[in-house]
Amino acid sequence: MTMLKDPSVKYRPFPQIQLPDRQWPSRTITRAPRWLSTDLRDGNQSLIDPMGAEKKNRFFDLLLKVGLKEIEVGFPAAGATEYDFIRALVDNGRIPEGVKVQVLTQARPDLIATSFESLAGVHSAIVHVYNAVSPLWRQVVFGMEQPQIKEIAASAARMLRDNAARFPQTDWHFEYSPETFSTAELDFSIECCEAVMQILQPTPEKPIILNLPATVEAATPNIYADQIEYFCRNLPNRESAVISLHTHNDRGTGVAAAELGLMAGADRVEGCLFGNGERTGNCCLVTVGLNMYTQGVDPKLDFSDIDEVIQTVEYCNQLAVPERHPYGGELVYTAFSGSHQDAIKKGFAAQETRNDQLWAVPYLPIDPADLGRSYEAVIRVNSQSGKGGFAWVIEQDQGLKLPKRMQAHFSRYVQDLADELGRELQASDIWDVFRKTYRLDAPQHFQLLDYNEMRSTDGSRVFAGKIGVDGKAHTVSGRGNGLISSVVATLAESFNVPIEIRDYSEHALGKGADSRAAAYVECVTADGRTVWGVGIDEDVATAGVRAVLSAANAAATAQG
Amino acid sequence: MTMLKDPSVKYRPFPQIQLPDRQWPSRTITRAPRWLSTDLRDGNQSLIDPMGAEKKNRFFDLLLKVGLKEIEVGFPAAGATEYDFIRALVDNGRIPEGVKVQVLTQARPDLIATSFESLAGVHSAIVHVYNAVSPLWRQVVFGMEQPQIKEIAASAARMLRDNAARFPQTDWHFEYSPETFSTAELDFSIECCEAVMQILQPTPEKPIILNLPATVEAATPNIYADQIEYFCRNLPNRESAVISLHTHNDRGTGVAAAELGLMAGADRVEGCLFGNGERTGNCCLVTVGLNMYTQGVDPKLDFSDIDEVIQTVEYCNQLAVPERHPYGGELVYTAFSGSHQDAIKKGFAAQETRNDQLWAVPYLPIDPADLGRSYEAVIRVNSQSGKGGFAWVIEQDQGLKLPKRMQAHFSRYVQDLADELGRELQASDIWDVFRKTYRLDAPQHFQLLDYNEMRSTDGSRVFAGKIGVDGKAHTVSGRGNGLISSVVATLAESFNVPIEIRDYSEHALGKGADSRAAAYVECVTADGRTVWGVGIDEDVATAGVRAVLSAANAAATAQG
Repeated sequence: MTMLKDPSVKYRPFPQIQLPDRQWPSRTITRAPRWLSTDLRDGNQSLIDPMGAEKKNRFFDLLLKVGLKEIEVGFPAAGATEYDFIRALVDNGRIPEGVKVQVLTQARPDLIATSFESLAGVHSAIVHVYNAVSPLWRQVVFGMEQPQIKEIAASAARMLRDNAARFPQTDWHFEYSPETFSTAELDFSIECCEAVMQILQPTPEKPIILNLPATVEAATPNIYADQIEYFCRNLPNRESAVISLHTHNDRGTGVAAAELGLMAGADRVEGCLFGNGERTGNCCLVTVGLNMYTQGVDPKLDFSDIDEVIQTVEYCNQLAVPERHPYGGELVYTAFSGSHQDAIKKGFAAQETRNDQLWAVPYLPIDPADLGRSYEAVIRVNSQSGKGGFAWVIEQDQGLKLPKRMQAHFSRYVQDLADELGRELQASDIWDVFRKTYRLDAPQHFQLLDYNEMRSTDGSRVFAGKIGVDGKAHTVSGRGNGLISSVVATLAESFNVPIEIRDYSEHALGKGADSRAAAYVECVTADGRTVWGVGIDEDVATAGVRAVLSAANAAATAQG
Repeated sequence: MTMLKDPSVKYRPFPQIQLPDRQWPSRTITRAPRWLSTDLRDGNQSLIDPMGAEKKNRFFDLLLKVGLKEIEVGFPAAGATEYDFIRALVDNGRIPEGVKVQVLTQARPDLIATSFESLAGVHSAIVHVYNAVSPLWRQVVFGMEQPQIKEIAASAARMLRDNAARFPQTDWHFEYSPETFSTAELDFSIECCEAVMQILQPTPEKPIILNLPATVEAATPNIYADQIEYFCRNLPNRESAVISLHTHNDRGTGVAAAELGLMAGADRVEGCLFGNGERTGNCCLVTVGLNMYTQGVDPKLDFSDIDEVIQTVEYCNQLAVPERHPYGGELVYTAFSGSHQDAIKKGFAAQETRNDQLWAVPYLPIDPADLGRSYEAVIRVNSQSGKGGFAWVIEQDQGLKLPKRMQAHFSRYVQDLADELGRELQASDIWDVFRKTYRLDAPQHFQLLDYNEMRSTDGSRVFAGKIGVDGKAHTVSGRGNGLISSVVATLAESFNVPIEIRDYSEHALGKGADSRAAAYVECVTADGRTVWGVGIDEDVATAGVRAVLSAANAAATAQG
């Protein structure tokens, strides 16, 4: 088989929801929802190698550290590994005050009984029961009509009520999921939820959680939002229910569906760190949480050490967080293109000089430092980069702030090297080509060995120095109205290398007593070439002398 | 630094768009947009190691094969690698009739001239010019006011017009991007586009492409849709423009933004295969295209051999397609949980018996076969699986259709093995434990060596056989009203192993002359244990005899 020219013979469009007065498109998310991590359940059940006890415990600790207050810890009736882990959490007192663990079970008496037993003795917990309600599941999987499906839900509720009574020392909470909600008739999902509510008698003080899964993502995310808004508007006794979202990512829009669902009135989001879960995964809690954060809303989740979160998640799931995953991926704070790098550099500079605290840096929707990432990693250089890129790297790596026109001059050497190597340039590659281009390493044609600077009675300066020429020392001198011009005069008079200074700049390298100085000169040679010189020295004046000699070396050779 | 308790001091919410009568939430996507692949430009510029000529050519061929008609091939003024590749495409006649290549350039005379030169001689092409228009870029990057920014756009348009006149043999098309559109004032973006249109004079027959980038994704995707609808409604001479979307994925909603943007009136989508691109990447064309396909809309892109697409993309980008990437990831057609596996199995069965062509299988929003994937890969088994999982694997792998109650019996052996190994079970693991559990391999306590079946004059049957008992042959016989019962009688009378048959079933293994038969018996032993026997043989009757002996072996030992 292959892709169909007319896919409409095999696939049907998802029908619109009739909700012309929908309100969610005009709403925004202004506060954090309740979060549930299902990493240890939906996430774990979809791993190639499910976690053992050691990994489960490690993941559980991470979730506590991130700040999750509701954690689905497994499916206790599914097997010994699951049951024993959950029992151990309870028996070893590993569930802190204020944190509720949640267990999932199908609507069967033995499984529900086992689920309660796995939690016996816990101070507070959520038992989560589900049954699929959509037509495809009713017809193909169960061979049942609506009334029977609704009765499964009601009987599950009775079992929840009765089993809770067996363990009165625990503060039990209940969650009901009409599984496959997003592909079911909305009114029927409401009916099933109502049937459950009639038995469990939730109140606004002790509400039931109604979790509305996009078990399989089957439409654009606005449709899911319509479904959530419709459900919230039409559920009787809405104030006694916490509306929970559980999206999947089959169409790549699981995060969007959760966000639009929150705008549509939901109170709670289920998902996994970095979007693990069946098939294409669940809603990514990191992304939804940090999306809120970048809008000034406290997500009440802490990703300040996102690398630690990634490390643990990758270890436990044995799946890599993709390089481009929002907020966490290895490449998301990296700009390769020159114009991006230039803009980011200017953004950081502006950020430092502005007086407000507002974050506003081009191409970076969040300050990487908020997540424990550093600016150093922001920029790399390859053959796609403009001058902004290497200039940033040289400044970060060596402290050199190249003058703008010098950046333009140097850029083609970087470009040539990048084209030649055909790979990303390292900071060391750039520094090597810089030292070579500006003749920073001995031996050179002209070499400064020693010098004194004297002030004449007429105010002019005299440079009196010892300069090595191809290894042989020459004692020479020259006069000018400053040190630089006296060196220029010396070069012209003693060595017949006339150069004209067009621009000169200098800055401190580093801070305090140990700082050095860097000097840059732009010169024109007798034959009209523009040459650049760079000098670095502990002494500010000497750095300037070295820069001029560096330019003279360029002038004396065919080099640019 | 770390995450702020009150992020509102540093980050501000994105403002709502005033569009209370927005129409897009009631629309659906009913036809394919024009697609542009920017894999060789936005994708390539954000790679750690940008592609060389060999990889670029390979990627270009893939894009043609997938069916792209508009391909952004690079930034010719950025360096020799880019320029030479584009020139070679033209010079070597590698651009088929009906395909337009597109090149990107900044709004500078030298760069624009170089861009046209890179394409000289091409039959038809798109030159794409951009300048950033949003306040942050104006202030921080350029230090310019709105009029100057608009003048950059206008002067770029004049350069496009004038350069096009230098190469009249080519059918030139133009694209203008108000970069950072999604964070700019909408009316100002429209003004810039208008300025460009006034110079280039597009018509409905030869429209300009106006590409509206979410250069950095900065809000929920409904906001982008509002922006697109506002733009489409308020752009003068709308019918002379092709509105193009270029989303990024900083908030994980790049696909959603593109989809809602199409509903809001756009005509064209730019993106990359599997969502490569700066930072978190661009809109994924595979996902948006196949999302349409699953709604019965022909995307006019061909992913019928998605593994080949993945292979080439991974080779060229040197980035892996993540395991959970929609449609393409390694794990997206894999169900691990027992209830999912059971539902999928039933879905496939129902699919085969139904008469319509409609695809309706639980948990699989698309037929993997449409993408060149196979069903075999759908299900794996681990300790999270219920009985549906291994039963499917055994049926696929060995052709055995285990009776339901036998599945329940076997499941705990599978479960124990999965718990013991703590990893995904292979089909061979399951088959090994099946053969061991049901004693399919010699030697066994009872072994069938030879037999005849005779019909008595009273209608009863006589089993007359040679049965090995711990390696020693015994000639025995027994009588019953059928072959099976005569074997049971033989076992009771000759070996004192009384068993009672509770259920018996049999089916052909494979089809045609070479087919074998599999038989299953459920028996109760004298001490009340339920034991199962399995027999496989070329002969239907012999399979049944073997199954009974298999059960007798269980009865004769302590085995279940």
